[in-house]
Amino acid sequence: MMSPLRLGVLSLVAAFLFADLAGGARADYLVSETGSFYVGGRTVTLNDLPKRELVFTPGTPPVAVDPNGQFEVEQMYVQFVRLASPKARYPLLMWHGGGLTGVTYETKPDGKPGWQQFFLNQGHDVYVSDAVERGRASWARYPEIFKSEPFFRTEKEAWELFRIGPTWDADPAKRVAFPGVQFPVEAFDQFAKESVPRWATNDAATQSAYDALVEKTCPCVIVVHSQGGNFAFTAALHNPSKIKAIVAVETSGAPPASADITPLKDIPFLFVWGDNQNFYPFWKGIRVNIDRFANQLKTAGARVDVLDLPAEGVKGNTHMLMMDKNSDDIAERIQAWIGERGLMK
Amino acid sequence: MMSPLRLGVLSLVAAFLFADLAGGARADYLVSETGSFYVGGRTVTLNDLPKRELVFTPGTPPVAVDPNGQFEVEQMYVQFVRLASPKARYPLLMWHGGGLTGVTYETKPDGKPGWQQFFLNQGHDVYVSDAVERGRASWARYPEIFKSEPFFRTEKEAWELFRIGPTWDADPAKRVAFPGVQFPVEAFDQFAKESVPRWATNDAATQSAYDALVEKTCPCVIVVHSQGGNFAFTAALHNPSKIKAIVAVETSGAPPASADITPLKDIPFLFVWGDNQNFYPFWKGIRVNIDRFANQLKTAGARVDVLDLPAEGVKGNTHMLMMDKNSDDIAERIQAWIGERGLMK
Repeated sequence: MMSPLRLGVLSLVAAFLFADLAGGARADYLVSETGSFYVGGRTVTLNDLPKRELVFTPGTPPVAVDPNGQFEVEQMYVQFVRLASPKARYPLLMWHGGGLTGVTYETKPDGKPGWQQFFLNQGHDVYVSDAVERGRASWARYPEIFKSEPFFRTEKEAWELFRIGPTWDADPAKRVAFPGVQFPVEAFDQFAKESVPRWATNDAATQSAYDALVEKTCPCVIVVHSQGGNFAFTAALHNPSKIKAIVAVETSGAPPASADITPLKDIPFLFVWGDNQNFYPFWKGIRVNIDRFANQLKTAGARVDVLDLPAEGVKGNTHMLMMDKNSDDIAERIQAWIGERGLMK
Repeated sequence: MMSPLRLGVLSLVAAFLFADLAGGARADYLVSETGSFYVGGRTVTLNDLPKRELVFTPGTPPVAVDPNGQFEVEQMYVQFVRLASPKARYPLLMWHGGGLTGVTYETKPDGKPGWQQFFLNQGHDVYVSDAVERGRASWARYPEIFKSEPFFRTEKEAWELFRIGPTWDADPAKRVAFPGVQFPVEAFDQFAKESVPRWATNDAATQSAYDALVEKTCPCVIVVHSQGGNFAFTAALHNPSKIKAIVAVETSGAPPASADITPLKDIPFLFVWGDNQNFYPFWKGIRVNIDRFANQLKTAGARVDVLDLPAEGVKGNTHMLMMDKNSDDIAERIQAWIGERGLMK
């Protein structure tokens, strides 16, 4: 057990450590617990499947294996770092986008600290999750449990879809990035290691797991990227009083225009957008849809802010702006917005 | 930047925080960085595969998707928590067993802190990895890249193989555990969520990634479980001067008796074993093989210790002893052994 004297000293220390963080300086942070848990999921039993032939050692004959039995499936993995003396009123949940995992928010592909570390430095308890089917959440046999085949994103698709540049090539020297792009292009192949397969048929299970996460961990603030957006907006519709703010980073989906979004009127929203969307009909379409949703939120009475980086003179950001060279600059703007919403102590 | 005064205060604080940890008390710990990286892997290009039909939304017609392109595959994921003032001389690497990920060492299935947290509390920089094909390391299309089908461990197999008890049943009330078992049986289904599929044909890529991890992160101490054992012993053979100690927890494989293991003679080894092995010919066979390896190490001149828990009167531990109710007691014995080897400052 820790003595009252020791606790008192720790509080003083915490105050001392965080004293100059407003200036963006990094400091060490005092952690009470690093850990993880699973939420969501269900139990499935497979029966009557034929035995499979598996090769256990290349060059040796296949061995018959029985695939039948009971399995836990469709859970979500959540990792947390809890501070001894958080400066934020609520935990910060960081939700990734499609074909990726929570690694999105960890160290950047160029080895520099990412947003998880930034927001820990700023005094948030941080929860980084892997959605159903991704990373440490694991995946299940298809088509018996998951109802479709997975698909694997190519490096070419990542380069183009994430707006790093107009032309990908197998030879890194021949790849064409946007002028002044902020993504560390020399680390692109390192980034490609973060890709995980995705299924198109697990949305209901994924939403259910996110809802369970909100139920367990919130009230909270959510930072959400790309495909995760609609899961966050829907989770907020399911449990509006538990969400204290949503930072929607390059989110790609939203509830339909016909949805009643008045339950979201007390939640502040910050929409964050990178550069070069206008070169892509795909991104222009997404932007139109999310702008429509943002306007609906405003009409309903919600506080809505838009951090349109190129409009503010910050050029060259990609879809993966938490990995871009100026990721800390963007995070500082988000942190300032969180502070202005009264969400820091 | 942090001032020299501030750094001095932090050092004092760290000394103060760690002062009473020898007694097993928990305290907060000062972290300088939480982050992650990938090691190993290779670039693969798929050509000439037919387009696949994928169902993107259940009930709608399948869409043709081109699976060809360039991918990064066979990398390993490594997450680290680095302390501001580590008390250990070297980082502690924690390697998981078969069909599992680094989550093995995080919070236990019953929600209590696991070994990652224990060894952070003791002042180690801790690196927890997901081997090739597992968790955040991701996996690759088969049979085109991975050369076999994955297999999925059933809950029944986990209950029996991990020596939780003699009889599994779908109804938790009908499961039979060993008398006095230390595993938190009420959390068994939660534990089953940690399972990930495994392949039998990725050993060479996995060894190569572990070797790259040692090259990048060591000198170090390795805690390794189950299937991970032979990867650690082989990594030590490939790079003996970089491994300062190996804690082999219920390891299941070892280099063959014909291997020249004299390069390992300067590495201290601690072999840790749980209870109830004698009920299983499988485990008796493994024990004979690992005991043979341990004796070879002794003959070669290595320091070899065996923590045979039931022989020391600690009963009921399973194969997953880092998740058992007395996991901290076992970790304290490991920590004492690490200290006795001169590996703490």
